[in-house]
Amino acid sequence: MGSEREPQYVHAHAGDNVAVVVNPGGLPAGARFSSGLKLREAVPEAHKVALADLAAGEAIVRYGVPIGYAHRAIARGSWVHEGLMTLPEPPELSSCPLATDVPAPLAPLEGYAFEGFHNADGTVGTKNILGISTTVQCVAATVDHAVRRIKAEVLPRYPSVDDVVAITHPYGCGVAIDAPGAAIPIRTLRNLSLNPNFGGEILLVSLGCEKLQPVRMIPAGALPVLEEAPSVAVMQEARHGFGEIVANIMELAEKKLRRLNERRRTTCPAAELVVGLQCGGSDALSGVTANPAVGFAADLLVRAGATVMFSEVTEVRDAAHLLTARAATPQIAQDFLREMAWYDEYLRAGGADRSANPTPGNVKGGLGNVVEKAMGSIAKAGTTALRGVFAAGERVTQKGLVFAATPASDFICGTLQLAAGMNVHIFTTGRGTPYGLAVAPVIKVANNSGLAARWHDLIDVDAGRIATGEATVEKVGWEIFLLVLDVSSGGKRTWADRWGLHNEFVLFNPGPVT
Amino acid sequence: MGSEREPQYVHAHAGDNVAVVVNPGGLPAGARFSSGLKLREAVPEAHKVALADLAAGEAIVRYGVPIGYAHRAIARGSWVHEGLMTLPEPPELSSCPLATDVPAPLAPLEGYAFEGFHNADGTVGTKNILGISTTVQCVAATVDHAVRRIKAEVLPRYPSVDDVVAITHPYGCGVAIDAPGAAIPIRTLRNLSLNPNFGGEILLVSLGCEKLQPVRMIPAGALPVLEEAPSVAVMQEARHGFGEIVANIMELAEKKLRRLNERRRTTCPAAELVVGLQCGGSDALSGVTANPAVGFAADLLVRAGATVMFSEVTEVRDAAHLLTARAATPQIAQDFLREMAWYDEYLRAGGADRSANPTPGNVKGGLGNVVEKAMGSIAKAGTTALRGVFAAGERVTQKGLVFAATPASDFICGTLQLAAGMNVHIFTTGRGTPYGLAVAPVIKVANNSGLAARWHDLIDVDAGRIATGEATVEKVGWEIFLLVLDVSSGGKRTWADRWGLHNEFVLFNPGPVT
Repeated sequence: MGSEREPQYVHAHAGDNVAVVVNPGGLPAGARFSSGLKLREAVPEAHKVALADLAAGEAIVRYGVPIGYAHRAIARGSWVHEGLMTLPEPPELSSCPLATDVPAPLAPLEGYAFEGFHNADGTVGTKNILGISTTVQCVAATVDHAVRRIKAEVLPRYPSVDDVVAITHPYGCGVAIDAPGAAIPIRTLRNLSLNPNFGGEILLVSLGCEKLQPVRMIPAGALPVLEEAPSVAVMQEARHGFGEIVANIMELAEKKLRRLNERRRTTCPAAELVVGLQCGGSDALSGVTANPAVGFAADLLVRAGATVMFSEVTEVRDAAHLLTARAATPQIAQDFLREMAWYDEYLRAGGADRSANPTPGNVKGGLGNVVEKAMGSIAKAGTTALRGVFAAGERVTQKGLVFAATPASDFICGTLQLAAGMNVHIFTTGRGTPYGLAVAPVIKVANNSGLAARWHDLIDVDAGRIATGEATVEKVGWEIFLLVLDVSSGGKRTWADRWGLHNEFVLFNPGPVT
Repeated sequence: MGSEREPQYVHAHAGDNVAVVVNPGGLPAGARFSSGLKLREAVPEAHKVALADLAAGEAIVRYGVPIGYAHRAIARGSWVHEGLMTLPEPPELSSCPLATDVPAPLAPLEGYAFEGFHNADGTVGTKNILGISTTVQCVAATVDHAVRRIKAEVLPRYPSVDDVVAITHPYGCGVAIDAPGAAIPIRTLRNLSLNPNFGGEILLVSLGCEKLQPVRMIPAGALPVLEEAPSVAVMQEARHGFGEIVANIMELAEKKLRRLNERRRTTCPAAELVVGLQCGGSDALSGVTANPAVGFAADLLVRAGATVMFSEVTEVRDAAHLLTARAATPQIAQDFLREMAWYDEYLRAGGADRSANPTPGNVKGGLGNVVEKAMGSIAKAGTTALRGVFAAGERVTQKGLVFAATPASDFICGTLQLAAGMNVHIFTTGRGTPYGLAVAPVIKVANNSGLAARWHDLIDVDAGRIATGEATVEKVGWEIFLLVLDVSSGGKRTWADRWGLHNEFVLFNPGPVT
């Protein structure tokens, strides 16, 4: 442990009685900061140091809120680790303030645009992909087989199409399809097939005897945005075996490819972006580098008229009172509380609570508990008013900053954000994860320069420069904003896309399997 | 509707008051059977006809048990469809008989063997596969990338290795890892890596910061059967980016491939087989053709000393009293009841019950409800005593007929049976499903000749010949038994393997995600 640089910490809010050490490798006992504070013991990078003597039971304050209570007296200059902190109670939902502190609108930001694919329903794609949807897990291996052949034999003839993606999943049968939780995976599958990057062309593969029949997955009339009904291939209707089944899928796919291939990018205002925010593998720096920079970019996007969605219920639960106050209307605040209450009950029924959220990596990275994680996490959402709340799997229909309720699990969250209509994704990470999605570009932002250097060919933006003073939150925020426009135009490719790192869809199914 | 063949039905048990029409395409009103019975209305193929006048409220008896009660009076010769039947209550668990009707052992069957790969732990593989396990969803896309490269660049140098399989899954983080339900997916992942077809070579890829750390997934000492500790690649330890990460996985993989490549098949008694039984897309013929034939094969396998496991809790729940009576000891019966009670509660907590099981295809195929489905389903288990019961994800350690508790969902069941140690799989189907697994060969048995003809290049055995009188249950049972030996020896390849139809692993996670 040690550093050649001057000992340095980040003090997030004026009232905080802890700060975060930012020196790579941490600092040894005896290290002295420019403020005069001297470490009583070694403190690892991204971990907290006490700025004042804390009495037993006293609140440990970071981001201006109590992130925990001291187990015992903690002397100034000590390492404030998770073992010293008691988890506070979560905010009582019934006493959260409703739209009491609505931020004034920021000045509109004009003149920013990207090159996208206009869809008939008014949405805009940042990629031009043929999606092949499936009603049921039984057809997945067959569709994968067909997609391999389409990519090898057919796609090369349609060079304006970026990719062919099989939307396979373990749902559709062997599940309690009328159970209270079943609505979520069903609408997720429906709305996934409507993602703007699929261009409104739906090709659906069904087995024939499954519970989730095509008309249940995509009911007639449920899709006013579609120009025509989905094309459906039903495997059990094949009279001549596997060869016919595959040929049928390939023939329908080629019809879609022909149409998709005629599309061209045109200039679209930045307002057509639907940006999903997420973090994975966070540490205590997330809330002072990457997430605030993304928050600044989020504000720029909102000012430009775009939709920006944040998610991950267990990572905002402890900030519920702050977010309901920021809601544009009392109804939006109530909608937010409804989602929090649903999740509280979901976890309770499973014998868990929000304290199940932090990972060993989070804790090793200095996050004392889920409260500290949440306060860092919501920095991504910037400073604007909360304009809408959407339940898991719902399609977002609102501009500005919205909350799309999802679990924090990276891949479930990403899948649900795609179902919500996301066409570009920003993902912040501290410990590092090689996250990627096939359907929308994923811009990965590192919260520390060490990770950005080690994973130079996986990380797209280094926000660690904020901690070291090499760049400001504003500067990195603008970089992210401009990179979003570039990536969405098919210009610069993300590292995940360059390597073809595309995680599978993961459905959120709170209902039982049978 | 109609048929050129003589009208024909199958009457399963002497006391049954319904029988099943077996003519392809069904029969029209007025059709007369050789018994003298005349149809009062058209009856579809595989659907039931009343053999006697039934009063309102009277039991509808098939397989010798009430599968339902008549809503209203039903005249002899009528179509007895699901709309006329009330679902019976499930057997009360507390009053199920314990080991009261234990079948006498059948004569041992000597002299049957196959060519398999002996493992250090005493198990035998039917394939020689390198499995790459993962602790967490975050590494899945990277491992998939590495596996593509290993298959293209490395595997060709090791011709005795059959395949490289990535054991990827959406678990390991973003989940409540201490919730009551979490033990199931964790032990499933552990035991999957121990499947006999992986030859005892474990290569584990970890991210580094996940909740399911390698030592938790595979604790030291948990694997007395392993000669050495698993090889572990931790992505976050890489100092030089994605290239290093992939190179590291490939290097460890090549070490394993070198060892696996030295293995040769040797002659093993049939007793080394661990056979998983499953059905998917059943109809009313399943219980008279494919499942009894598989049941006959199961008895042959048990006589030869093999392990035969059946599963699918919701499809045996209504036969609980029959199976507890067949248990070899009262303790085994109690173990079985414990699994039934767990699942009753799991479904209840999710707002569902066993009636959620049948699919539209089951019903269209003549299965009136889950009771009728269950009675047909347990025919697969043959006639021998129940020798053991294992919870979901546990490794089976008992020869003879055992129950491995799993959901009925085909891919969850298959995954759990692989974790239980299955080295060959028999799958019966009526409506048709293109099911396949990468790790163990899947023999697909059709319960009707129409499906076998239509899907000539997906179905391995046509048990429909039993309904038409072209073959007996015994004859088809022996065919299946001999095919199991042949396929397990690396001789005849199943259709799923010929096409490379390999469904993904699907974990059973009754715990909440966060």
